[in-house]
Amino acid sequence: MGKIAVLRLGHRVKRDQRVSSHVALTARALGADEVVFSGEYDPGLLESVSKVVERWGGNFKVSYTPSWRTFIAERKTRGEYIVHLTMYGIGIQEVEEELRRAHEERGLVLIVGSSKVPIEVYEEADINVAVTHQPHSEIAALAIALDRIHQGKELNINYPDAKITIKPSRLGKLRKKESPREEIN
Amino acid sequence: MGKIAVLRLGHRVKRDQRVSSHVALTARALGADEVVFSGEYDPGLLESVSKVVERWGGNFKVSYTPSWRTFIAERKTRGEYIVHLTMYGIGIQEVEEELRRAHEERGLVLIVGSSKVPIEVYEEADINVAVTHQPHSEIAALAIALDRIHQGKELNINYPDAKITIKPSRLGKLRKKESPREEIN
Repeated sequence: MGKIAVLRLGHRVKRDQRVSSHVALTARALGADEVVFSGEYDPGLLESVSKVVERWGGNFKVSYTPSWRTFIAERKTRGEYIVHLTMYGIGIQEVEEELRRAHEERGLVLIVGSSKVPIEVYEEADINVAVTHQPHSEIAALAIALDRIHQGKELNINYPDAKITIKPSRLGKLRKKESPREEIN
Repeated sequence: MGKIAVLRLGHRVKRDQRVSSHVALTARALGADEVVFSGEYDPGLLESVSKVVERWGGNFKVSYTPSWRTFIAERKTRGEYIVHLTMYGIGIQEVEEELRRAHEERGLVLIVGSSKVPIEVYEEADINVAVTHQPHSEIAALAIALDRIHQGKELNINYPDAKITIKPSRLGKLRKKESPREEIN
């Protein structure tokens, strides 16, 4: 089984902190293996995502690349399949099986853009994939792409090394459980 | 078939514009019927979402309520099923069928919170539903909830009154098509 990297294009420190943070946490929670930010370097963002990983568990990787071009080229050399999520692409419902096969056999890079994505990204991608052809949210598109690639299995991921876990409750709200490790570390 | 309303809690004009806008556009693109904002009144946000509806088509409704309590109470009186999306809830994979039935028979209110959701919301909801028990994004949770309630059918929605449509392309990028109506109006 290949891995899934999410490449976040065009991050701007002032404007995009929350949206880029949502992209990264969605990637982690829904079974991607890493997020790579490009655009402006934002150590605060990298740190806040890393802290979530530290407390909530798992091996999700967080990094920054000064050049998305180089990053994509490198991943292509490794044989990974480059998927650009964009409303201009082919509907995901038509290519789900293809994405799953590419995930299994080669590993994926899922690219999510900011407002203006350079035309080069559309051209360098192996495939442009749309989650509807309507304007909405790269976070929503990423979530649905991951859910469909994993066929829902990502909803049952467990993090044995988590310091915090939730006790689910249909009615009302139960408290978070913090393991003793939380105090020790 | 009942309708789906999305209630966005605790909007703050300065901090939440983009995330609340993503919530609304995700609701529209993935087959909800309306979004209702609460928290701070933000005419700019209402207008920007309404403009998307005007250009991209459909009957999606956008409104503001000064009181989420009153809004929830009214929708309960109508018989609608109140679903609070929260990481503390029961996993969506366990209750999908129930949500679909409630959608068909009663209509749904999907509540998505901001950072601090009052305990009353957990208690007033008919059900608290989690899209993973991990911290991520209300936008992602909403997207997956809608996709599963509609069983993917929302990806094929057409908007006959759209002034703009996309010509999908697997490779490269094609231009948006604006219908002549766009110029006339």
